[in-house]
Amino acid sequence: MSPRTESEAVERANTAFYETLERGDFDELSALWLDATEAGDTGISCVHPGWPVLSGRGEVLRSYALIMANTEYIQFFLTDVKVVILGDTALVTCTENILSGGPAEESGELGPLVGQLVVATNVFRRTSEGWRLWSHHGSPVLAESGDEEQEED
Amino acid sequence: MSPRTESEAVERANTAFYETLERGDFDELSALWLDATEAGDTGISCVHPGWPVLSGRGEVLRSYALIMANTEYIQFFLTDVKVVILGDTALVTCTENILSGGPAEESGELGPLVGQLVVATNVFRRTSEGWRLWSHHGSPVLAESGDEEQEED
Repeated sequence: MSPRTESEAVERANTAFYETLERGDFDELSALWLDATEAGDTGISCVHPGWPVLSGRGEVLRSYALIMANTEYIQFFLTDVKVVILGDTALVTCTENILSGGPAEESGELGPLVGQLVVATNVFRRTSEGWRLWSHHGSPVLAESGDEEQEED
Repeated sequence: MSPRTESEAVERANTAFYETLERGDFDELSALWLDATEAGDTGISCVHPGWPVLSGRGEVLRSYALIMANTEYIQFFLTDVKVVILGDTALVTCTENILSGGPAEESGELGPLVGQLVVATNVFRRTSEGWRLWSHHGSPVLAESGDEEQEED
């Protein structure tokens, strides 16, 4: 594949990850993460905003089942998506502009919607079945950084 | 190199990264990050706890110059260090137990020491000169996660 096509394939895999979370499709989400055969049982890792590190498919996928069970509605607006590929590894950074809501306490309606600004570093590995997630690290943006954000290199 | 030796080499590179920050050695820190020739000008990325994404050697290294200028004392106690190597890429997760202090306002003494709990995902690339940092993502641990942390796979 040409570098451009490769980069697009990685960006599609990254987009698919967030769309799967939006749909709450646990099986499809599980399939997007690297298999145990490729990275070992504890090969994958995940950090949700404000959480400690989760390692291995068991811990990582359980956390998503928990999040999906407590999220009635979630939408990701991705900005600043950057893709860098070196060999069989792709590094994606992006800003997740998140709008989410949990279930209402009593009625069947949505709870209050909450906006959240998160930055993520997602690492993908090339496999025979396409690019698969090796690591996701999301963290809350708590403050604007200084001048270095306004300058371009 | 045997897998064990490789894994140790990655852990040494990870330890060197934090020791360099403790010493405030900017030149040595610069040398630990991947060169522009290898990952392109914007190939490296860095997220400090609570910050947005910084991309490219210019933005990343300026941020460390700024942090070093405002940090009189910093010490990292690393725990939960996990290393996974796939091909020429190594993924390291660890908990940074940080003790730091800025300069005092008036006197030349240390400002108050602050403890901080941060988790990091560090991605390294194998080069002819050893393992070099491709990405660092640190984030504050804001809350204990649920049951999934207490179970082992």
